[in-house]
Amino acid sequence: MKAAYYIGNKEFSLREVDPVTPGSGEVRVKIAYCGICGTDLHVYLGHMDARVGNNRVIGHEMSGTIESIGEGVENLEIGDPVVIRPLAPCGKCPACERGHSHICQNLKFLGLDSDGAFQENWTIPAYTVHKLPVGISLQHAALIEPLAVACHDVTRSRLQPGEDVLVIGGGPIGMLVAMVARKQGGNVVISEVSEHRLATAEKMGFSTLNPLKVNVAEEIYKATGNKGADVVFEVSGSQPGVDTMTEACATRARIVMVAIHATKPQVDLFKFFWREIEMLGVRVYEPQDFEKAIEMIAAGAIDCETMITDIQELPDIQNAFAALSGNPQAMKSLIRCS
Amino acid sequence: MKAAYYIGNKEFSLREVDPVTPGSGEVRVKIAYCGICGTDLHVYLGHMDARVGNNRVIGHEMSGTIESIGEGVENLEIGDPVVIRPLAPCGKCPACERGHSHICQNLKFLGLDSDGAFQENWTIPAYTVHKLPVGISLQHAALIEPLAVACHDVTRSRLQPGEDVLVIGGGPIGMLVAMVARKQGGNVVISEVSEHRLATAEKMGFSTLNPLKVNVAEEIYKATGNKGADVVFEVSGSQPGVDTMTEACATRARIVMVAIHATKPQVDLFKFFWREIEMLGVRVYEPQDFEKAIEMIAAGAIDCETMITDIQELPDIQNAFAALSGNPQAMKSLIRCS
Repeated sequence: MKAAYYIGNKEFSLREVDPVTPGSGEVRVKIAYCGICGTDLHVYLGHMDARVGNNRVIGHEMSGTIESIGEGVENLEIGDPVVIRPLAPCGKCPACERGHSHICQNLKFLGLDSDGAFQENWTIPAYTVHKLPVGISLQHAALIEPLAVACHDVTRSRLQPGEDVLVIGGGPIGMLVAMVARKQGGNVVISEVSEHRLATAEKMGFSTLNPLKVNVAEEIYKATGNKGADVVFEVSGSQPGVDTMTEACATRARIVMVAIHATKPQVDLFKFFWREIEMLGVRVYEPQDFEKAIEMIAAGAIDCETMITDIQELPDIQNAFAALSGNPQAMKSLIRCS
Repeated sequence: MKAAYYIGNKEFSLREVDPVTPGSGEVRVKIAYCGICGTDLHVYLGHMDARVGNNRVIGHEMSGTIESIGEGVENLEIGDPVVIRPLAPCGKCPACERGHSHICQNLKFLGLDSDGAFQENWTIPAYTVHKLPVGISLQHAALIEPLAVACHDVTRSRLQPGEDVLVIGGGPIGMLVAMVARKQGGNVVISEVSEHRLATAEKMGFSTLNPLKVNVAEEIYKATGNKGADVVFEVSGSQPGVDTMTEACATRARIVMVAIHATKPQVDLFKFFWREIEMLGVRVYEPQDFEKAIEMIAAGAIDCETMITDIQELPDIQNAFAALSGNPQAMKSLIRCS
């Protein structure tokens, strides 16, 4: 079978390898599609070599079908459509002991810390598998993993129907967060600097603001009768986004920190004090977030067609990464793996 | 009667003025004691002239007795021992409408935005009055206002018995937060740079760390079996304190932002994401926080004697402010007003 290895310096090596026979408690999944995550792009660009190494199959936003079942695995059958929740917690650290194994202090992420899904077949622990309803589109199902991120983020925000929501950053995760928040009854505005992405957001029916053209906080205050946004999702990872998150929000608002800030931005802690603002860090997902994402995709609640920019074949992975990294307008690129 | 007016440039003017007759819905309180708050020191140092002006009676950490009662005031009698919750909300803004009138978007703070308690008698709206149990020490009762701040902060933290608590900054508010947190069953450690304050904290039975001598986060991790602090109160208002707050905390910890940060410090937002940390801004108090503080003082649950550094007479207010601003080791200075 074919497997695409990241070998460093923006390069993949496509190799013919033997499928791995599933051991006890494992299954082998035939990968249908695997999306390119922002994290995968970081790997491609060499930012994560220290963690990932130079001989790693990456990829985790996948869909597929069960192809082979190891000993002791119950409740799964060959041919079942599935997705994988790519987290391997240690089960022993304080975070695991306190029920937060999704952010285990020694968490292994499948597709970064061990091989992932940019290959024809993937052998993984059965406990990571979520079964899909029969008949679901496996193209659309490749969006379940990033959608589970969005479900986790919105759940952590404690969003109530009718609340005013600002999403700062209209990339793939920002758009999915906006869609989930709207489904839960939020009045969602997306702030984004790319006109192309703003057009995509508007096509999906969202109100939008371009911070290069208007003062986002002022517009939010005007639109909410001088109240501000009840929930702000910071998905931009930028200093201007961090400035806006405190400026635009209401008294006792919840700010959800979705973005990965590689440097320490300046934060208006006075505003946190003055308005009793709350901030919630969010990372990956819990099993129930996957189940909710599966339900949403199965019910057609997500505009998957607009989210999927293009689909390329596994042997073309090198070009797919090069194209995506040069195209800030793209949403989600999928790789067809088998 | 005597009243001390802040007239700018570190100066008070002691004047003989007529007591104000309470109007409808108002009462006049004979002030017994009024503590000097950190905010009062900021006024004295000229940092708040734009807000306070140069002809203002400041002071709000007071105790006293009802001396005169205006029309329509029920449930209060002359001679009742009382404290004042010095907040005058507008009742109309979005924050008030949503039940957060203590942080009203147009909040007036008595003793800053209107005259306060460094005078013999103070006429204020009756709705700001909290009655005290008969027999309570009016010296100790002057600590009720700052203690209500601490009660508010600990309530917002959702502290559970047995949780590990780090208080960063061992000044008066940090010490009161530590005392309330310990009463609620927290295992409290205080981080503070002043050896004198560390000694005071130790005298009160707290574990302490000096960040100038040890790595606070490492010590907290060692002491909690690699878990970190469940609740961190940032009361230092410093960049090193802000660095420590994210370094020392556990997965899903709650950081309570008590300090007033005049500038925007750099905050490790990556850590918020990585460990799903939560941060809660806190400001002043709600009525129930005052009631809780009154109960604690009445029950002798707070070591008031250690907290009160000295007591000076109203005519000596100038010296009292000069002495306190030159003495970083002091805890709470009281002014005897009548």
